[in-house]
Amino acid sequence: MSNHITSAKQADTTTKKAVILVSGGLDSTTVLAIAQSQGYSCYTISFDYGQRHRAELDAAAHTSQFFNAAAHKVVTLDLGAIGGSALTDTRIDVPETLEEGIPVTYVPARNTVFLSIALGWAEVLGADAIFIGVNAVDYSGYPDCRPEYIDAFQAMANLATKAAVEGAPLAIHTPLLDLSKSDIIRLGRELGVDYSQTVSCYQANDQGLACKKCDSCRLRRQGFEQAGVPDPTKYV
Amino acid sequence: MSNHITSAKQADTTTKKAVILVSGGLDSTTVLAIAQSQGYSCYTISFDYGQRHRAELDAAAHTSQFFNAAAHKVVTLDLGAIGGSALTDTRIDVPETLEEGIPVTYVPARNTVFLSIALGWAEVLGADAIFIGVNAVDYSGYPDCRPEYIDAFQAMANLATKAAVEGAPLAIHTPLLDLSKSDIIRLGRELGVDYSQTVSCYQANDQGLACKKCDSCRLRRQGFEQAGVPDPTKYV
Repeated sequence: MSNHITSAKQADTTTKKAVILVSGGLDSTTVLAIAQSQGYSCYTISFDYGQRHRAELDAAAHTSQFFNAAAHKVVTLDLGAIGGSALTDTRIDVPETLEEGIPVTYVPARNTVFLSIALGWAEVLGADAIFIGVNAVDYSGYPDCRPEYIDAFQAMANLATKAAVEGAPLAIHTPLLDLSKSDIIRLGRELGVDYSQTVSCYQANDQGLACKKCDSCRLRRQGFEQAGVPDPTKYV
Repeated sequence: MSNHITSAKQADTTTKKAVILVSGGLDSTTVLAIAQSQGYSCYTISFDYGQRHRAELDAAAHTSQFFNAAAHKVVTLDLGAIGGSALTDTRIDVPETLEEGIPVTYVPARNTVFLSIALGWAEVLGADAIFIGVNAVDYSGYPDCRPEYIDAFQAMANLATKAAVEGAPLAIHTPLLDLSKSDIIRLGRELGVDYSQTVSCYQANDQGLACKKCDSCRLRRQGFEQAGVPDPTKYV
C-alpha cells in the first residue's frame, strides 16, 4: 500500500533522499522535522504490524503530509502472528505501573524488522540515509534502542545491499539518541512540530486519546513537564 | 497465519529449538533436513512477500510436514509495495540468460528482512538457533548471501533482542555456506530429501513446473549434473 502525497521527486537527483521511520508518535515526528530541516526529500514509512490501535497510523499520515513528505508508505506485516508482546497480543495487558527490566511492551526484534524493510525501500529509492527516532535516555529499556545496537545494524547494512556493495552505503541517522525527552520536545517545537497531532500511548483509543497510565504516556508527560511546556496530549 | 502441523512442543524444554527459513526450494529444504538430523525441534517459517508464484509456499508446507516440523508459519509481508526486483515486480522480466553483476532477481534487503522476522519468532519461542540456506559458492551474486554479511547479522542479532541482553543469544547457522550445489544435493539425498517436491524456479507456474531457463533453474540443473544424479525437477 502506498499513499503518494505529493508527486514523488524520483527524477530529481540533486536532492538528498531519506527514508524516515514514522510511528505517529512524539519522537519519530520530531525526527521527520529534523530530516526535513536538513534538506532531505523525506520518504516516510509506517508499519501496520498488528499493533493495538490504528490512531498512530492516522497520526503518521497526518504528520507526513504536514512536513511535506515526498511519499508515505504503510507496509503491512503480521507481527501478531509471532506474538510475544503486549503491543501485538491483546491477551497480554499493557502495564500501567513502572516495572523492572525489559517490559512486556517490547516487541521482539521490532526495530530490526522495521529498519530492514526501510533498508530495502531506501535501496530501491537510491536514498542516502535512514532516520529512526531511537533514544537511549528517556526510553523503556528496549535492547534495540541502544547505540551499540544501531552501530551493529549499520555495520550489517554496509554489507547487506547491492548499493553498499557497489560503493554507496546508506547512513543510519539517530538524531535523538542522546537527547532527553524534554530536549526532544524543545527541538521539535522550534522546528514546527504540533505535538497535539502525535500519538505516543501504547493503548490509545480509536480517536487517538491517550490513557495517561502506560510507560509511554508517563515518559511523554514527564518530558513536557521538564521542558516547561503545557502538555497538549489529548487524554481519555 | 500459522499452521500447526503437529502439537507444538513448547512444554518440552529439553529439546533444542530452531527456526528454519524455508522457501520450498532445494537449498532451504536441505537445511531443514540438516537441522532435523541434528536433533532440533524445527519451527519453519516462510514468507508470502509478493513473489511471482505460490508454488514455492506449497512446497515449503509440504517439506515442513515431511520433516515433521513442530510448526510452519507463513508471514505475510508486502515487499511488492517496495518493488525493485524482478521477483516482486511483474513489470521487470526474469532474465533467461546469464548476466554480469548482481541480477535483477535480487530482492532489496530480502535476507535481512527474513532473518529479522525469524529473529523475532526465535525470541518468542526461546529458540537456540536460526538456520538459513545461504550459499557463497553456486549462488547468484546476491550481497546478502556472503559470509561477511552473515557474520555482521549475527553481531547485530547479539545486541538486538531481550534474550541476547539477558545472556541467551541465538546462533545463526548456515550449513550450506561453503558447499557446491552438487555437494548440497548429495547431502540432502543422504538425509532423505525428495527434490522432486522442491521448487527453485524464479517463475514456476501454479503447478510448480519450472521454466528451465532462469538463473535458479540453471544452477539447480548443473548441480544434479555434477552430482551425477538424475534431475527430478518437473519442467513445463
